[in-house]
Amino acid sequence: MGIEIERKFLVNGTAWQARVTRQIRMAQAYLNDLQMVESGALRSSVRVRIEDDRAFLNIKSAQRGAARQEFEYEIPCSDARDLLKLCVGGVVEKTRHWVEHDGFRWEIDEFGGDNAGLIVAEIELPSEDTAFDLPEWAGVEVTQHLRYYNLALAEYPFRQWTEQERSGPQIGAVDAC
Amino acid sequence: MGIEIERKFLVNGTAWQARVTRQIRMAQAYLNDLQMVESGALRSSVRVRIEDDRAFLNIKSAQRGAARQEFEYEIPCSDARDLLKLCVGGVVEKTRHWVEHDGFRWEIDEFGGDNAGLIVAEIELPSEDTAFDLPEWAGVEVTQHLRYYNLALAEYPFRQWTEQERSGPQIGAVDAC
Repeated sequence: MGIEIERKFLVNGTAWQARVTRQIRMAQAYLNDLQMVESGALRSSVRVRIEDDRAFLNIKSAQRGAARQEFEYEIPCSDARDLLKLCVGGVVEKTRHWVEHDGFRWEIDEFGGDNAGLIVAEIELPSEDTAFDLPEWAGVEVTQHLRYYNLALAEYPFRQWTEQERSGPQIGAVDAC
Repeated sequence: MGIEIERKFLVNGTAWQARVTRQIRMAQAYLNDLQMVESGALRSSVRVRIEDDRAFLNIKSAQRGAARQEFEYEIPCSDARDLLKLCVGGVVEKTRHWVEHDGFRWEIDEFGGDNAGLIVAEIELPSEDTAFDLPEWAGVEVTQHLRYYNLALAEYPFRQWTEQERSGPQIGAVDAC
């Protein structure tokens, strides 16, 4: 188990592409859904993810925002394929790109399928107040905006977002979803 | 992943105790709850179980009755203790006893805590129509009675059952919970 301190930003332009050190294709879905987690009826999300030829089961505590408990276990790919059929909501497809910047590793998720067009960069930090340099390609922060979470994208994909939602949040705004 | 064909019976008397070949103490709880699984909002139950000094994560498909998909993964005990805090419903405590009878291994669950007084015997079969000899200590079959499932016992423990519920189902009856 680890505590995950994670911040999410929208991505501007394509300058990051020249800095990618590794990339991997992912398909993931959830055994539970956002409403249950948001309403407090459940205290965790349970994710099944296939990463190229490996697969993982991941459990995250449900509190919103940056600090969440996280548990991850590798499982057989054949199990993962069966488990995806037990998931609720859609399968989220994406290519994850890794970019090093100023001593930190950024994960840039370029979504496909029903979320094509959405690109989100994440940085994991050792503590909530750790200082880090924001790359020039990192745009508006969306850490507090639930609709950018994969669990939300499984049920309300980018393709269904309104024009206003697709244009990104206003700086400083926190919306309900 | 395996398909689990499981039949459950109430236990009469104590004759089984002389036949126990092994026993283990268990504490388990669920990351999701029965209503969600029963309503079809979820397609699986996710269980955390500590067995003496080992721990397991278990996922079962939600269809009711004998044949269910099952996935099980061993996890660190320290993770299991943290995960129990993310569970909904209560922790189900029991001692599991193994008894061999006529070539089959029976699991007899003697519940503790809020389910003290309840003893249920289970047999796993290779197919739904496999013939087996019913031991003399096996009473009424409860395979179809949801309230005897551990997921139900976590939320509606034996201690809260009505006198009628505690007396066991009538032979042939199927109740809602």
